[in-house]
Amino acid sequence: MKALLTVLALLLAVSTARAADNPVWREVAPEQLVFMELQDGLVVIELNPLFAPKTVRQFSELASRGFYDGLPFYRVIDGFVAQGGDGSDLGEYSEVPLLDAEFEIEWKGGMPWTPVQKGEMFAAETGFVDGFAVGRDPDEEKAWLTHCPGVVAMARNEGPDTSRTDFYIVIGQAPRYLDRNMNIFGRVIHGMDVVQRINRGDPADNGIITDDAASSRIRSLRLGTSIPEDERLTALVPDTNDKSFTRLLDERRERRNPFFHHQPPRALDACQVPAGGRVTR
Amino acid sequence: MKALLTVLALLLAVSTARAADNPVWREVAPEQLVFMELQDGLVVIELNPLFAPKTVRQFSELASRGFYDGLPFYRVIDGFVAQGGDGSDLGEYSEVPLLDAEFEIEWKGGMPWTPVQKGEMFAAETGFVDGFAVGRDPDEEKAWLTHCPGVVAMARNEGPDTSRTDFYIVIGQAPRYLDRNMNIFGRVIHGMDVVQRINRGDPADNGIITDDAASSRIRSLRLGTSIPEDERLTALVPDTNDKSFTRLLDERRERRNPFFHHQPPRALDACQVPAGGRVTR
Repeated sequence: MKALLTVLALLLAVSTARAADNPVWREVAPEQLVFMELQDGLVVIELNPLFAPKTVRQFSELASRGFYDGLPFYRVIDGFVAQGGDGSDLGEYSEVPLLDAEFEIEWKGGMPWTPVQKGEMFAAETGFVDGFAVGRDPDEEKAWLTHCPGVVAMARNEGPDTSRTDFYIVIGQAPRYLDRNMNIFGRVIHGMDVVQRINRGDPADNGIITDDAASSRIRSLRLGTSIPEDERLTALVPDTNDKSFTRLLDERRERRNPFFHHQPPRALDACQVPAGGRVTR
Repeated sequence: MKALLTVLALLLAVSTARAADNPVWREVAPEQLVFMELQDGLVVIELNPLFAPKTVRQFSELASRGFYDGLPFYRVIDGFVAQGGDGSDLGEYSEVPLLDAEFEIEWKGGMPWTPVQKGEMFAAETGFVDGFAVGRDPDEEKAWLTHCPGVVAMARNEGPDTSRTDFYIVIGQAPRYLDRNMNIFGRVIHGMDVVQRINRGDPADNGIITDDAASSRIRSLRLGTSIPEDERLTALVPDTNDKSFTRLLDERRERRNPFFHHQPPRALDACQVPAGGRVTR
């Protein structure tokens, strides 16, 4: 059985990209790392202070004083989002300041840009910036983090500047219509399988779980910098600014493998390109 | 807390479509229903004999003699696919006949078609046919089931006609580059949260799980027709051929809710439109 599966693995390898065998890895800095322990295991998040500096600062400050420890994922819709926190984002219940909208940034020359696709449905251009899938509009000179699976963003109310503490993780097909409307400030780089085990609510109730016993909880949520160096896991992600990643994109676009009897369009969904990481001791 | 969450539910309802409140439901015929029991619960699959008649016939025949009961998901890559079966698809290990490719069908007039999007990356047109997301090329007069999350398809080797018994379920961002290359023959209409709890393999090993104890197993897989009517669950799905579904699509395209400060493009990803079902006694 084992030998058979090995052969199968070789035969079926067409669907995973070749260049993935030899990516150049980048180590994520401890101040951009979040370790979130759930019942089913560890989830590692990479923060993005380039696109969401204020959100990252407030989230990090909350994390450093243990704000999220023990809080539930209270709104979970399968195929959409898992939202957690203290549910206090309505305003009168919290002393945590409201956050300014950080929905997009000015695109400045000199930033790294690894192009993926032009003229897709939701952005004039998509590409990668420092590991994150990004949408860009060269005419408007704007760029924004896209709502790919694994993205971490602040929940909010109707107003643009109403985020505060609660956040969601995208757990299904990218809801790209939310792009440029939310404070995306990170992405899961390890443990999406753990995130996928978070208990779901009923879509008919908008995913809200009112029964505390039925909700999955955050056991602890720690910044990389609050963990002593000799105890801290090292997190590695593909260096999307490196030419090895461009090669991976090219291979995925071309699909020269004889497995393909119908040649796919020379197109890439930035949210479907594997850019997740791994952790080591 | 409960009152607060109810208010939150109302406030956050923007991200779920309005027309979803009042869809017209269609009952899935028992011969197109599959009930798959996993450790974490029930998964209900709707078969599609219109697009994959031979595959549905063979899969149904295998299911009716208990072929899949006890078999593992032996290749599972988070964000991509969960593949299960006896691993015998290499040929010499199985007496089950090979299947002809059923990658696409001729588009015939008179078929139901609820349009979603023109000119997206992977198809000239997308739309819904009887609940399934479909790609269509009017010039070539072809149509095919698209690789959306929850889609069920036969695994194969390099040749087009090498499917046999083993199948996969898409568990991540739609791998649309596989469209028109695989025998898609069904979709999960209930229990994707259960599918998401299937144990993952290591992507470095192409997701292959060689340790039997580490793999999730199919406890039983039964056709709707093999369950007595008074014991069988009723499965309802949104009737995508009905005008209520067209209204839902229109609402998702327009996004008139004041929640949206940046107006999203008037575009829809057919794989991001909720079309899942529910089961009742």
